[in-house]
This record gives sequence, structure tokens and C-alpha cells, in this order.
Amino acid sequence: MDANTFGKLFRLTTCGESHGPALAGIVDGCLPGVPLNEEIIQAELDRRKPGQGGPAATARREEDKVRLISGVFEGVTTGTPIGFVIENTDQRSGDYSQIKDVFRPGHGDMTYQAKYGVRDYRGGGRASGRETACRVAGGAVAAAMLAPRGVTVCAQTVELGGIKAESHDPEGALGRPYFAADPGVVDAWDKRVRALKAEGETLGGVVEVIARGVPAGLGEPVFDKLDARLAYALMGVGAVKGVEIGSGFFASRLLGSENNDEILCPGPKGFASNNAGGVLAGISSGQDLVIRAAVKPIASIAKPQRAITAGGEPATITVGGRHDICAIPRIVPVLRAMVLLTLADFWLLAGRR
Amino acid sequence: MDANTFGKLFRLTTCGESHGPALAGIVDGCLPGVPLNEEIIQAELDRRKPGQGGPAATARREEDKVRLISGVFEGVTTGTPIGFVIENTDQRSGDYSQIKDVFRPGHGDMTYQAKYGVRDYRGGGRASGRETACRVAGGAVAAAMLAPRGVTVCAQTVELGGIKAESHDPEGALGRPYFAADPGVVDAWDKRVRALKAEGETLGGVVEVIARGVPAGLGEPVFDKLDARLAYALMGVGAVKGVEIGSGFFASRLLGSENNDEILCPGPKGFASNNAGGVLAGISSGQDLVIRAAVKPIASIAKPQRAITAGGEPATITVGGRHDICAIPRIVPVLRAMVLLTLADFWLLAGRR
Amino acid sequence: MDANTFGKLFRLTTCGESHGPALAGIVDGCLPGVPLNEEIIQAELDRRKPGQGGPAATARREEDKVRLISGVFEGVTTGTPIGFVIENTDQRSGDYSQIKDVFRPGHGDMTYQAKYGVRDYRGGGRASGRETACRVAGGAVAAAMLAPRGVTVCAQTVELGGIKAESHDPEGALGRPYFAADPGVVDAWDKRVRALKAEGETLGGVVEVIARGVPAGLGEPVFDKLDARLAYALMGVGAVKGVEIGSGFFASRLLGSENNDEILCPGPKGFASNNAGGVLAGISSGQDLVIRAAVKPIASIAKPQRAITAGGEPATITVGGRHDICAIPRIVPVLRAMVLLTLADFWLLAGRR
Amino acid sequence: MDANTFGKLFRLTTCGESHGPALAGIVDGCLPGVPLNEEIIQAELDRRKPGQGGPAATARREEDKVRLISGVFEGVTTGTPIGFVIENTDQRSGDYSQIKDVFRPGHGDMTYQAKYGVRDYRGGGRASGRETACRVAGGAVAAAMLAPRGVTVCAQTVELGGIKAESHDPEGALGRPYFAADPGVVDAWDKRVRALKAEGETLGGVVEVIARGVPAGLGEPVFDKLDARLAYALMGVGAVKGVEIGSGFFASRLLGSENNDEILCPGPKGFASNNAGGVLAGISSGQDLVIRAAVKPIASIAKPQRAITAGGEPATITVGGRHDICAIPRIVPVLRAMVLLTLADFWLLAGRR
Repeated sequence: MDANTFGKLFRLTTCGESHGPALAGIVDGCLPGVPLNEEIIQAELDRRKPGQGGPAATARREEDKVRLISGVFEGVTTGTPIGFVIENTDQRSGDYSQIKDVFRPGHGDMTYQAKYGVRDYRGGGRASGRETACRVAGGAVAAAMLAPRGVTVCAQTVELGGIKAESHDPEGALGRPYFAADPGVVDAWDKRVRALKAEGETLGGVVEVIARGVPAGLGEPVFDKLDARLAYALMGVGAVKGVEIGSGFFASRLLGSENNDEILCPGPKGFASNNAGGVLAGISSGQDLVIRAAVKPIASIAKPQRAITAGGEPATITVGGRHDICAIPRIVPVLRAMVLLTLADFWLLAGRR
Repeated sequence: MDANTFGKLFRLTTCGESHGPALAGIVDGCLPGVPLNEEIIQAELDRRKPGQGGPAATARREEDKVRLISGVFEGVTTGTPIGFVIENTDQRSGDYSQIKDVFRPGHGDMTYQAKYGVRDYRGGGRASGRETACRVAGGAVAAAMLAPRGVTVCAQTVELGGIKAESHDPEGALGRPYFAADPGVVDAWDKRVRALKAEGETLGGVVEVIARGVPAGLGEPVFDKLDARLAYALMGVGAVKGVEIGSGFFASRLLGSENNDEILCPGPKGFASNNAGGVLAGISSGQDLVIRAAVKPIASIAKPQRAITAGGEPATITVGGRHDICAIPRIVPVLRAMVLLTLADFWLLAGRR
Repeated sequence: MDANTFGKLFRLTTCGESHGPALAGIVDGCLPGVPLNEEIIQAELDRRKPGQGGPAATARREEDKVRLISGVFEGVTTGTPIGFVIENTDQRSGDYSQIKDVFRPGHGDMTYQAKYGVRDYRGGGRASGRETACRVAGGAVAAAMLAPRGVTVCAQTVELGGIKAESHDPEGALGRPYFAADPGVVDAWDKRVRALKAEGETLGGVVEVIARGVPAGLGEPVFDKLDARLAYALMGVGAVKGVEIGSGFFASRLLGSENNDEILCPGPKGFASNNAGGVLAGISSGQDLVIRAAVKPIASIAKPQRAITAGGEPATITVGGRHDICAIPRIVPVLRAMVLLTLADFWLLAGRR
Repeated sequence: MDANTFGKLFRLTTCGESHGPALAGIVDGCLPGVPLNEEIIQAELDRRKPGQGGPAATARREEDKVRLISGVFEGVTTGTPIGFVIENTDQRSGDYSQIKDVFRPGHGDMTYQAKYGVRDYRGGGRASGRETACRVAGGAVAAAMLAPRGVTVCAQTVELGGIKAESHDPEGALGRPYFAADPGVVDAWDKRVRALKAEGETLGGVVEVIARGVPAGLGEPVFDKLDARLAYALMGVGAVKGVEIGSGFFASRLLGSENNDEILCPGPKGFASNNAGGVLAGISSGQDLVIRAAVKPIASIAKPQRAITAGGEPATITVGGRHDICAIPRIVPVLRAMVLLTLADFWLLAGRR
């Protein structure tokens, strides 16, 4: 719960800029005896790779090769901090000279300057989505710890460019373009993406993350509610502008009798519905956790926009180039990782081993 | 950022159950020299009092009288922790004997039992909305510190029972029933509330909180983004099921060129729009912060619902009595307090004095 | 680990000035189901009362009556925060008007002024030893949690005014004047105390705290070592100027073969000696924890001293009145409480229940 | 203030085992605009290198080459986390096969096993003094931030093997063997070290760290006192068994009139003495901070000792080889680094920029 550290007992600390020498992360607090190696982490990182998402993806090639440097011995975690490094192999600083002097709309150029008075403008520096590689790597460690304990997390895109998936199949989403909830919607999304790309536009969507096997009793009652921490986790990912749990914003229009989940018998399957999204009074009920994040359109558009220079002069900027036109699908494994990291932390906070 | 502590440098720690002897809170980290007394805090607490909200309010009478016990000397804060106590004067435990044995739908009875194995069932114990009195008191201290520094926060109800306010006037909301954004909508809300009350139903709505005068540069770039912490703050209030900032969920349907806020000239007024809601890359831009929270309908309804007993037997429960039928308007000063507490913390984290 | 909060999972937050309305504390994180009531806490507080220590004690009468306001239901803790209030019944502000304008040697008057620019000078305000009442109350909660789990902590005075106890009997210390380690030394200490009191002098000593039943495996390997946190805990008590564990400073003069504790057989009794003081590489070994704190003489002496006024002018001050002449014995239950609080925290950090 | 993270606002997180692929650290919270590069950090690391200390040093050759991977742009810090990696180039695991099965006296083998159930036994793994390289690198960043702000820290060995330095010259210590406080004592120390080395023995000593230019007003009044945090910082370094500030343990034998530092005129030079060691009531007074750490003899001795195997059987172990026979002088820059890290944190906590 710090600037660059996530979690209280299961803690991920990261560093690295888009065009610096390397990214790195340290996972502290992982239980000992968890089978882990570079391949396990690499498999998750590869899901975040460009090219997973059809036409929405950037042409830029990033080789995110993770190297484990500590905390694993003879194939299992030792309880000491797990360090990893991801080299930046594709540093073409020349591409970004334009943004040195102009504050791009929708980007953090201006706010970084306000906060720090200095910034590494190359590729967005620390504000680049590149930092999310470390989140995914950290989430892979959390997944490795939680899976043998019965907790799994999946994620699916349920809406893109205003077009909703009609059916949900989160377990199958991993194998589909856009990590789509519904195979039937992919063509429509492809068409929309291609059309907007031609216009120099970008678009957004909604991603749903579902955690299964979460035992009842995780979370804290007042400030550190499980849903509060999940909201923190997802809203802290760049491009996310809204987070909801269970029936979410729709709950504000339901009657009490419609929104309450009646209880028919004990156990996670005993509820008549899951409008709560798996959390009651900030504590997990044993039902699936269901969280959705609203993803804004990518701010870098290939159209002229009004902006100002660092000196305060009006300017027009067109941020062309090799950018994604939608944070989806690459953000999907990132959001999943954030839920995994949150659950790993609450697992330990509950004294579970 | 703990179970019962909110914030890192400006920290509110609270305790107290609905029907225990008293509530108390400790605000640690408030700057010295801030004018403060019991009246200032009491004025905020009074806004949370039943009866502020017309027909939606409970008939139950709570006298929330705050007593300051430390941290203030000769009318100003000293920099040492500010302690306050609010006695529980209306403890009628007899009213709640029914819920001792049955887990109410939509309440934390079951999850508290799963987490702790024991619970103070009287009036919901710690899970009762009563704990929010301490949030409001803490927020009053934050407001006292921030106001002379130019930061003010207001809140308004923008939707109730599915009926939206047509115009927004946040500064005037304080004086209206439901803290309504729009005086013209109050009659329709009254009518809806009365009708549902007669049916034994409850309802929800949407509250918007706006912070003005927040300087550019507050927040952290990666995990501890300002918007992430605001989401944490609001989602941690009971009954909130969704949080969004700026254009929020709507942003997921906009094009990049629609959602980006073009920059016309330097300064907080220099943006062409505020879809970002005042935050870029996790850091305040100087524009107004605009955050909305989705409030679910109150779970206690005067209709029979299926539930189970602590022993796992099916049961039917009707939670009648003296309950509010909507968390609005009482939740409005609570949400405002959470934004104030968050901003006070980031103020200090930025090294401001 | 904050200004006024101690611990990470078992957290004590306190407030209150010497001459303000009241002190209060909130213990967050205590396990549920621990038998607790006001009598249990009061019994510990009474050990800190003036008059426990023979001639070293102040004549001032403090009635530290603790009132529990939350977190306990039907005689056991519920897992929610445990709040307590101790009223200040003996507020005679008039006694302290002199120190309003003069910075006393050895006191925090000057440093508080430098830090805050304002201070509650009455009786030392927050810097008064009076705040330690909350530590003792918090420690009583920790003791209530740990005792049924086999962990007990005792404390004894091993040196006073330069006169060492010749034998150690920590379990019996509770019943002796000065909480003396050795009944045979009490007369010599009495004599020394009386003689110095007559001269207007004050004196210090050394206190040893011993924890028994601490299981092997508590603590963290690098920064958050168990001994590091114990040092933090004890050095954070006013008047403590040094902390050592096991053979402590004496270890710096031993050879490796002398200082190493050979291991003869498994288990806490299997070591040939305990120079380590129960901690190896920052983690408990199962042996008794043995920690000593050096307590400086009370700074308030009944002799004229050179000082300066708040305005920077030279002054002479004689701090007479109703002061203790030694922090021992009143500091002894405080130091014991700090070790208890530390161990309760590491108990939870280790995932123990 | 976590297992592998030090500090609250200026935070160092580290990872790495003695014989793993590499060590790494992340410094989060450093102010922007601080001139920094690899050379500055390397210069500090080189002081920790074997061979700085004459005959006490190991023959083992470690090349601690630091590589900066983030947080620095165009020669200055950017405010984003500063990552560094130090490769382990000298991994000879074969040397350590003996300690796989035997718990060495005075080492963490047994306690790591108790805590984690698994351990990287090669060279002590995480418990090796090798982790302190990251502390020194982190301390170098703190020094780079603090020096232009007027705060400097030096360290000197004041006692070795029971032989005290007769005079103190901390500023010159850096250039002397053992970082000796007194050039005149070096020969005696050399002689003692040689004699004990021949016997297969090891020895300890006392190190003093002095911080100059610390402004009045750093620290917190109750739990998070500046001296408490310094004690935490130093006691958390392996081999340290005691910490004292100012007159320290000696204060326990002084009279109040002897120990109080009279105040003659305003300002850091206005005190008649510095028994307080620069801290009053937990807050810096502006005087020099003076802290001493007791360093135990190295536990690895070249003599047979009784021990047990992991299976609980009695064993005899002789830990020969290429070990240092004293943690001094290599621990000296480590202790200095810990004070620097602590002060950088309190600098930020005080809102200073």
C-alpha cells in the first residue's frame, strides 16, 4: 500500500521505466514450499504480449523475458523475497523526442511534471503501461501460491467499444482473441477495431475478473474491506476509470428484495443469487468474487489534439506510431494479476498457510 | 490502510459497536496549528443524523455527541493525536434478539461468523452503519486542516431509486433533502421513497463527491494512485458496490478523441473538459476531482426472506423495525468524509504543510 | 510502526496528554475469543501506579481507571478493535505554569517546539510518562491473548543507581519493591534512593525483560528481525537510552567460542547457553528471550539548572514538586508491555492463531 | 518496516541470497533531482569490500558491481523507484555442502528451518551477511539525497576485541584500517586479530555512528521515536546485540544532574554536553546524533563445536574456510547506511523537501 509496493503481507515492489535499462520486482511474503520457476512466470507474461489481441494490438515487439534472481531454491520458494528482472531490449528513444516538450492530453506528462519537476519522458517513463509486466509477474507468483490452496482467478472481456458480449464463459476466455467472454462477439469487435484504427481512433471496454474457491472469511470489516482493496487494486491500473463488484452500479437501481441474495442452505452454493459479488460487509462469503473494471480508450490517438508545451504555449500534437488502440486485451492479464495479488495478501492476513 | 485504520500519514483509527458502550476514534498526523473544537466536529456529525433526509430516514433517535479528549490545546491542534469519543446512548439490545440466531441476507452476519467465530450480533455490532459516525468525525478534522489550505469537498445525490437529478448544484446540496443535486427532483424522490416504504422495500442511488482546490501533483504513479485510493476509500463504506471517477464506466464507450481532455492553456481551468475527473496517471491535475459511488438498497427489508440459522437450518426472516429504507442521505456526509481523509493523507504524503 | 500506532497486525494506537481530558487507546487485531474484561486490564495498570516502588515514587495520586468501550462481548474479544479510555482525574494545570516559557534540560520541550511550533506544556503534554498507561493497557490485552498460547513475559530491575542485583528471580520480582530481581538488594537501593532524594537528585538503572514459551520461528530475517523490533519497542519508551539482547554489549568482548551457544540436543532446552538471548538471525530459537534496557535518571531534578526560555534567553530552572526520582519501578510494567505487544504482533505475523 | 523493506516514505526493499544469481534492491521515495549514478553507489559498496580491514578480512574475493536499472534520468533521480542489481559472480556452492545437514551454533540455520521448513543453505542463503551489500547501496542513495541538504553521517570503530580506542576522530576513520576511531590503536588491534586468527577464534567490537547537520524536529513523540527507529535500524543488522544512544548504558549510572544536558543558548551548539545523543523525547534536538552498536564475534569459528543435525542427532562441526574473523570493519559502512536510511525516512516524514 505504498507508491510502488502493493500489499501488506504479500507485497510486490516494482521499479522500471519504459525505456530504462530494465524492469524489476520483488515479491516479499510468499509462503515457502510453493513450486515456482521462470517458466511459470513467463507463461503469464506471454499472455500480456502484443499480438494476443488481433487487430487491436501494437506492431511493436517486446520480448519480456523474466529472470528469477532470488527466493527460489531447488524448485520451490523459500519464504525469502523473490526477485525478478525483465530487461528492456527494445529501447528506441528516438521515437519519443516529440513528447519531451509537449504535455499530451490524457497522459501523465503534465501531472508527473507537477509532482516531480523532472521526468523521464521516453515512452512515458514510469507512467508507461510497460510497468504492468511486473504486476503480471507478481500475479504469477500469487497464482502459484493460491492455486494449490484452491483459489483460482480468471478474467474476460465483457464489452468492447460499446458492444457487449452476449454470453459469458470466463474459463474459455483465455484462448480467445480479446480474452472475449463470448466467442460470438469477436467478429463484431474485430470489425469495430479495424474501423476505428483506420480513423486514428482508440476505444475502451469492460473487463470482468472472477475468483473461485475463495474461502469465506477473508477481508476486514471497516476500512480494509475485501471489496475496498479490490477496488484499489483495479483502479490503480492505468486506463481504469471505474470498478464495481457484483451487481455494481446496477444495484443502485434495484429494490432491496431484488438485490439481496437469499440464503437457502449453508455453503458457497447456498445462495439464491450473487448480487453481492462474493463479499458481505467487506468479508468474503465463499461465493465467487465478481469484479468489473471500466477501461477508457487509449489516450494516444493518431489525430491532432490541442495541447500545451512544458513552457505553457499552445501546441497541436498527433501521437501516431506503433501504439495499441485499446488497452484490451493486454490489460486483461494485468487485472487478473491484481486480483491474485490482493487475494494472496488477504490469505496471509487471515493467518492461513 | 489497516483493518480499522485509514490512511498512512493522516490516519484515522476507530473502534466501537452499534450497541457497545461507545465509539471512539483517533486522528494521528493532523498538522499542528489547525483551529479545532467540538463544535466544528459536531456540525459535521449533525449532518449524518437521522431526520436529515425526509421520509427515507429512520425514526430512531441517535444523539451523536462528540467529546474531544486530546490533541487540541487552546483552540488549535498540537500535532499530537486527536482523540474523540461518541457515547452510545440508545442501546436497546432487546430489539435485536432475533438476529442472534439467523444470518440475514445482504448482511455481514454470516461472514463475520466465518471470520471470527464469534460476533456481537446486537444491531449488527461493528458491521452496523453506526461506525460511520467516526468517519464523519475524522473527516471533519481533515476538512478543518484542508479548508484553510484551499481544498474543499462537497457531495450530492445524483440518482435515487433509478430517478436521476437533471441538473447538478453540489454547493447547494447541503441544504436540500437527500442532499439532492437538483431541487427539482426532490418531489419525485419523495414519492418513490414513500411508495416503496409502504411496500416494505428499500432502495439505492448514486452519490457524487467533488473536491475543489486540489493542487496538481498529489498522488503516486503506480499502485498508490490518487484514484485508486479514492476507490478504496469509497468502496470501503458499507452499501457501496461501485466507484467511478470522471467519465467512469461511460468512458469505456467513448472514443479516444471524445474522452481525452484537450489542454488549451496552463492551469486547472485550461482543460477543454474533465473526463479524467481530475486525475491523470494517478496524480491530480488541478482540475476538480469528481467521483461517484453506487449505493445499494438497504439490506434490511420489511418483507419475509429466505435465510438460514447459525446452525444451518432454513429460516424465514423479516427485518422490520426502525430502519432507514435508503442509505442515502445519511451516507452522503460519510462519502464526503472519506474523500477528505484521503486528500488530507495525500497532502501530507506530498510533503505539503 | 507509526507515530502513535505500535505494531503491524496487533496494533495499539494511543492518544492523550498528561493534563488533557483523558487518555485512550485502540487495540486492533487481537484474536477473537480471548477472555477479557476491565479487571484484567486494571490489574496491570495498578502495577504502574505510584506507590509501588517505595521511596522512589511520587506522592502524586493518579487514579488510572480503565473503561472498555468496544471489542469485547459476553466476556471475550470479538476480533473487532478493543477501545479503552482512562480519564485524567488529577488535572492541576497551575502546577506547571513555570515550564510554559522555559525549555527544561533533558525534556522534550525544545524539540516539541521545533517540530510542532506549538505544544501543550501542561505536565509535559504528550511527552509526559503518562502516555505509558495506554501502553500498559495494550500490553494487558496482548498478555491475555498470549498467555493461553503459552507465552508469558516477566520483568525485573537488575541494577539501580549503579548497584547491581546479585541474583535474578524474575518470577518473584512482581512482588518486590522496585520489581527487584533480588530481594537482597532492596535495602541498598532504598538507602541510595533516600540519600539522592534528599539531595534533589534523580537516578537510573537497568531493567531486564524475559519472555518464556516463545516458539521457534517468530521474526523476520532481514530488516524486521525480532530483536530489531524489540529494540524499537524498548528504545521507544521515554528514559530508555540503550537496549541489548542476550549477552548484549558484553558479547563485543567475547571470543566466538565463548559467545556461541552450542547445541546439544533439539528443542529450546537443548542449548548449552543463551548468549543469543533467544534470537538467531532475527528469528526466535525457542529459548527464553532476554532483553535489557538502560534507563536514564529522571530529567526533572530539584536542583537549579541552566536552561533557556522559548525566546532564547538564558534562564535557571529548578523542577521541584511531586516527581518520581527514578523511572524505575514504574517503567518496569511499561517495558514488559512493550515486549508483550511486540510478541503478539509477531505471533500474528507468523500466521499463528 | 517490513520483513524485507526498510522505512516508510524512503523505503529500501531488497532480495537475494548469498549463492543465488544476484542481489537486488529498490529504493522508493527518494526525492527527485538528486544527482546519482552508478559510480556514487559503487564508491560506497567498495568500502564494504573484503580487504579493507587488514588481517580481519576474508580472503574471499567478491566483486560487488552495482547496476542501476531505473529511477535515474540524465544524471538525476526522477522520483520514481531506483532499482539496482548486484550479480553474484562468486558462487561456489560446493564449499557449503557440510552445512546442509548441520545446524551451526550462532547461525540462523535452525531458526530458518523452524520458520520456513525449507532453506537455501548455500553460504547461509538470505541469512548471509551478503545481503548487507543492498543496505549499503540503499544508504548511498540516502546519502546522495541528504548531503546537499546538510546531513552527513560518519562511522568509526571505537572498540575491538575488548581494546578501546583512546581518542575519537570519526571524520578520519574512513581512511584507516578497521575504520578505527584512533590511529594509535590499530597496531594493538592488528596484533589481537592475528593472535586470535591463529587460534581459529573470532572477535567483536563496538561501532559508533555519528550524524551531523540533522535539523531539530525530526522524529515522532511516542512509538516512532527517532532513537527507537535508530535502534531498530542497527539491531536489525546481523551480529549486532546491543544499541545505545548518547550516554547509553552509562546513563543508567549517572545522576540526573550529571546526565542532563544544560542549555546555555539557542541552537545546536547551545548545549553544555550531549549525553542525550541528539534526541530529546524521541525528536532530534539539532545536536549530533551519536549511536553505538555492540557487534558480537563472528559465529563461524575454525574450532570444533557441538551442534545437531537437521534430524536432531548430535554432531560436531568446524566451520573453517574463507571467513572473516570479525564483522568489523565490513559492518561499519553497513551501520552507517542504516542510519542514513533512517534519517532519509524521517526527513520525508517531517515534510521536508
